[in-house]
Amino acid sequence: MWIQREIRLEARPRGFHLVTREVEEGLPELARLRVGLALLFIRHTSASLTLNENASPDVRRDFASWFDQAVPENAPYWTHTLEGPDDMPAHIKASLTATSLALPVRDGELALGTWQGVYLCEHRDHGGPRRLLVTVQGD
Amino acid sequence: MWIQREIRLEARPRGFHLVTREVEEGLPELARLRVGLALLFIRHTSASLTLNENASPDVRRDFASWFDQAVPENAPYWTHTLEGPDDMPAHIKASLTATSLALPVRDGELALGTWQGVYLCEHRDHGGPRRLLVTVQGD
Amino acid sequence: MWIQREIRLEARPRGFHLVTREVEEGLPELARLRVGLALLFIRHTSASLTLNENASPDVRRDFASWFDQAVPENAPYWTHTLEGPDDMPAHIKASLTATSLALPVRDGELALGTWQGVYLCEHRDHGGPRRLLVTVQGD
Repeated sequence: MWIQREIRLEARPRGFHLVTREVEEGLPELARLRVGLALLFIRHTSASLTLNENASPDVRRDFASWFDQAVPENAPYWTHTLEGPDDMPAHIKASLTATSLALPVRDGELALGTWQGVYLCEHRDHGGPRRLLVTVQGD
Repeated sequence: MWIQREIRLEARPRGFHLVTREVEEGLPELARLRVGLALLFIRHTSASLTLNENASPDVRRDFASWFDQAVPENAPYWTHTLEGPDDMPAHIKASLTATSLALPVRDGELALGTWQGVYLCEHRDHGGPRRLLVTVQGD
Repeated sequence: MWIQREIRLEARPRGFHLVTREVEEGLPELARLRVGLALLFIRHTSASLTLNENASPDVRRDFASWFDQAVPENAPYWTHTLEGPDDMPAHIKASLTATSLALPVRDGELALGTWQGVYLCEHRDHGGPRRLLVTVQGD
């Protein structure tokens, strides 16, 4: 059984955002699978996905702080500056995290660990809504 | 054919550890597959997976050195400090490497390159045992 | 339906290179799939893959600049130096990007976003040709 669907994530400010619930609500058919794989794929190059701690907003704020200092705006080596100071760092940050996130499905749901959640990593100041293409296969 | 199983990795000190053999020994059914995919998924947010050089312990030590300087403990921008100085860096390091590692299966085994091995990246000082959920599909 | 095939990428200089077309041309059977998954797997530890912006050569040049400053040659903490100054940074850069890239297939092609392309990230000065093992499953 294959499922393929686009899930639209509403526009969010720059930063790291927990979207596990939105993803799960977009995939009601998971309930019918005993075992499977779900591929979350974000069709953008300046926003990305990752899995991390799902409890403390502090953690997501510290993600933003670390990435902002590790990939600074206005660094002297940037040459692709036409689309604004947040653009080139956004591309690098996207490649340091994940565009494509494969998750196990077990007993009707995403088999995440207790503390794991899906983050939308929005690297642009005004990125707008983001589209995920989700592909699920299972039994 | 689907296989799904938890593999327990014993507690290891902070650092990068080669676990290819443990993973392969936990998946004897691979021998029956001509072609397939194996998803290694670590159900934690302060340990992670990656593939890299399987020969020199030097390489794994240098991984630890680089990650420790790139994501320092006690940086002034950390606000999530309640769980110890190694906790927040562990979360960032986990997202810079992989939580979910999809590997090709060919002729009864993981089709890794000659020099590739699976690393457990243990980012905590006392992380304890770690659990992988492995999902395999193949023919 | 399973397809598994090796795709050889010609030798390229150190840097980030767009290889979407080479990958697609190596997978003519995609045209027969309505839905599926393609796993691009690079069988090396000093070259890697990522998805990013497919239009401006500037972006790819800035990727090289950022990675070169973030993972410097000749850092005092490297101990694995026997294979040249570009070797150990290459291993780290490979783990910061992707060895294994799972892509959705839809209506006969890789379902990339408008601005997404597959990058070969060549981290060595003389890496030579690189081999991808591509595994596709679909319907």
